[in-house]
Amino acid sequence: MYIPTFDDVIAAHERIHPYIHRTPVLTSTYFNERTGAELYFKCENFQKAGAFKARGASNAVFGLNDQQAAKGVATHSSGNHGLSLSYAAGRRGIKATVVMPRTAPEAKKQAVRGYGGTVVECEPSTSSRESVFAEVVAQSGADFIHPYNDHRVIAGQATCAKELFEDVGALDAVIAPIGGGGMISGSCLSLSHMASRTKIYAAEPKNADDACRSLAAGHIIADDAPETVADGLKVPLKELTWHFVSNHVTDILTVTEEEIVDAMFLTWQRMKIVMEPSSAVPIAAILKNPAVFAGKRIGVIITGGNVDLKKLPWFSA
Amino acid sequence: MYIPTFDDVIAAHERIHPYIHRTPVLTSTYFNERTGAELYFKCENFQKAGAFKARGASNAVFGLNDQQAAKGVATHSSGNHGLSLSYAAGRRGIKATVVMPRTAPEAKKQAVRGYGGTVVECEPSTSSRESVFAEVVAQSGADFIHPYNDHRVIAGQATCAKELFEDVGALDAVIAPIGGGGMISGSCLSLSHMASRTKIYAAEPKNADDACRSLAAGHIIADDAPETVADGLKVPLKELTWHFVSNHVTDILTVTEEEIVDAMFLTWQRMKIVMEPSSAVPIAAILKNPAVFAGKRIGVIITGGNVDLKKLPWFSA
Repeated sequence: MYIPTFDDVIAAHERIHPYIHRTPVLTSTYFNERTGAELYFKCENFQKAGAFKARGASNAVFGLNDQQAAKGVATHSSGNHGLSLSYAAGRRGIKATVVMPRTAPEAKKQAVRGYGGTVVECEPSTSSRESVFAEVVAQSGADFIHPYNDHRVIAGQATCAKELFEDVGALDAVIAPIGGGGMISGSCLSLSHMASRTKIYAAEPKNADDACRSLAAGHIIADDAPETVADGLKVPLKELTWHFVSNHVTDILTVTEEEIVDAMFLTWQRMKIVMEPSSAVPIAAILKNPAVFAGKRIGVIITGGNVDLKKLPWFSA
Repeated sequence: MYIPTFDDVIAAHERIHPYIHRTPVLTSTYFNERTGAELYFKCENFQKAGAFKARGASNAVFGLNDQQAAKGVATHSSGNHGLSLSYAAGRRGIKATVVMPRTAPEAKKQAVRGYGGTVVECEPSTSSRESVFAEVVAQSGADFIHPYNDHRVIAGQATCAKELFEDVGALDAVIAPIGGGGMISGSCLSLSHMASRTKIYAAEPKNADDACRSLAAGHIIADDAPETVADGLKVPLKELTWHFVSNHVTDILTVTEEEIVDAMFLTWQRMKIVMEPSSAVPIAAILKNPAVFAGKRIGVIITGGNVDLKKLPWFSA
C-alpha cells in the first residue's frame, strides 16, 4: 500500500489546476455569532462537477500515461465520484465508464452522460456490481479509479485543505464530513505537513457512524447499507483512508438526521448557497458541540452541491 | 430634484465599505457555453441582509448627521429595503421603523425585527399605508428613506456596478432586473462615468412590464398591483430613476413567468447559489435573446437571495 506524501499533493495541484476551480472561502457573521467561532467555509459546492471529487478524479486521470489513457478509466459510483471522473476524462478526451445500479436516479445517469461518460447498469447488489464492473475492466483494460481508496485520489483531494490553508492561514481545526474518508484523508495529508497543530475533526451521520465506531474500536467497521439523508456518507473506510483517520483525526462527531436537515436549511437560508446534505453534517456538528469550537478559527469543508432541487429534505421532514 | 453624481458614489463607497460585503463575481462554464457570452455574475445575494439594498440603505443611514440620526429612519417596504434599512440602522445603533401590511408574511416581519427594526402594521391598501406612515414620521421625526427614489440610495446602489467594473474590467454590457429602478439607476450612474461604452440592459417580467412601456412611451407608466413571481419588481419607476432609465438604458427585455422560474431553477442547479426570483429575470432575458449577448462580455447583477425556501416556485409550477 503506497501512502501518498505532501510531494504528491504539490504535484497533484500543479497537474490539476487548469481543470479545477480554486474555490472561494466564505464567512458568515450569522454563524460566527451563533457559534462563537470564526468559521471559514471552503466552498467545494462551487467546484467543477459540483463537488471536491473533481480534484481526485482529475489527478488520477491526468496522471495516466498516454498508453493507459487510451484504454480509458472506470469506476462504480452513483454519486459525485462518477460524475467527477466523467468530467475529468472528458477534459482529457478519454473514455470514462461508470457502473451504476439500474435503480439509480435517471438524473444521475444523465449527468454522467452530460460530461461524456458511459453508464453501464448493474443490479442493485454488491455481487452484480462487482461482476459487471470486472467485465467492463476485462473488456476495455480501463484503469479502475476507486472513489477514495486510491493514493492518486487522496493526493488530489488534499489540494482542497492546501488551498484553504494558503488562503486563510493557520487554523485551530478543520472539520469535514466522513464517508469513505477521501476528503478527511486528504486534509490530514496536507495539514499534517503544512500546519501540524491544526486538529482534524470528522463529522458523520449517527445513522451511518461506522467511522466513529471504527476509531473507537481501533479497526475498520463496515456497515451494510446504512440509511441517511447524507447519501454521500454511506460508504465504509478502506485501508488507505483508515491509515489517515487512525493516525491524524482528533475526533469524529455524530449528528442526527434532523440536525443535518436543520443545518442544511439554515445554511441555505443564511449563506445563500446550495449544498448537499452531506455538507451540512459538519455544520450540524459545530452547532451541536459549541464548546469544542467556540473562540477558535475553524475551517469547514462544504463538500458538494449536487442535490435534487425537486426533492429537498425539509419538504418531507 | 438632486441628481447624484459619481463623486457621490465615491463618497458612498468610502462611507459604507465597513458595513457591506465586496461581493464575489462568479463565472459559469455552463452558462458561457450555453449563451456564447462571457458572463460575470455579481453576487449581491451574498450581500449583508441578503440583497444589494444594503448598499443604498447604509449610505443613507451613515450619511445622516447625529441630530437626524437620533430621530431614526423610517420606510414602507415589505421587501429587501425594509430589511436592509433595519440592518444599517442597527449597525449605526439608531432606530428604524418599517411600515408593512399586516398581511405580509410573518417571516418578513421577524426578519426586520431580527435586525433590530420596529414593524408598524397597516392595512394592505395604499391609503392605509400612507396614513400610517405619515403618522410614524410625524410622531418620531424619523427620516424617510425611500426604497429607490432617493439620491442617497441610488448613490449607494451605484457602488455595486463600480465594484464590478473594478474587479473584471471593461464590459460590453451590464444587465440587471428593473422594478423601481434603483439598481439600474445606480449602474447607469457608475458606468456612464467609468465605462461610458458599456451598454445597460434592464430585464423585467412581462407581467409587470411598466418600465418597458414607460421607455417606449417616453414617460412613466405605473401599473396597479401587477402579479409576478419576481415580487421585488412590482413597483413603478419614479422621477429620479426615470431620469437614469430614460437617459442611459439601451433596452428593457421582458420575460414570462415560466422563463423566470426556469432560469431560477437552472441557476440554482448549475451555479449552486440561492437567489430570489427577481435575480433570475436578467438570466432569463439572456437565455431568451442570445443574439444580443453572444460573443460579448456581460455583467449580470444577481440582486438578492431572500427567498422562502419552503415555498419554491418550481414546486407549484
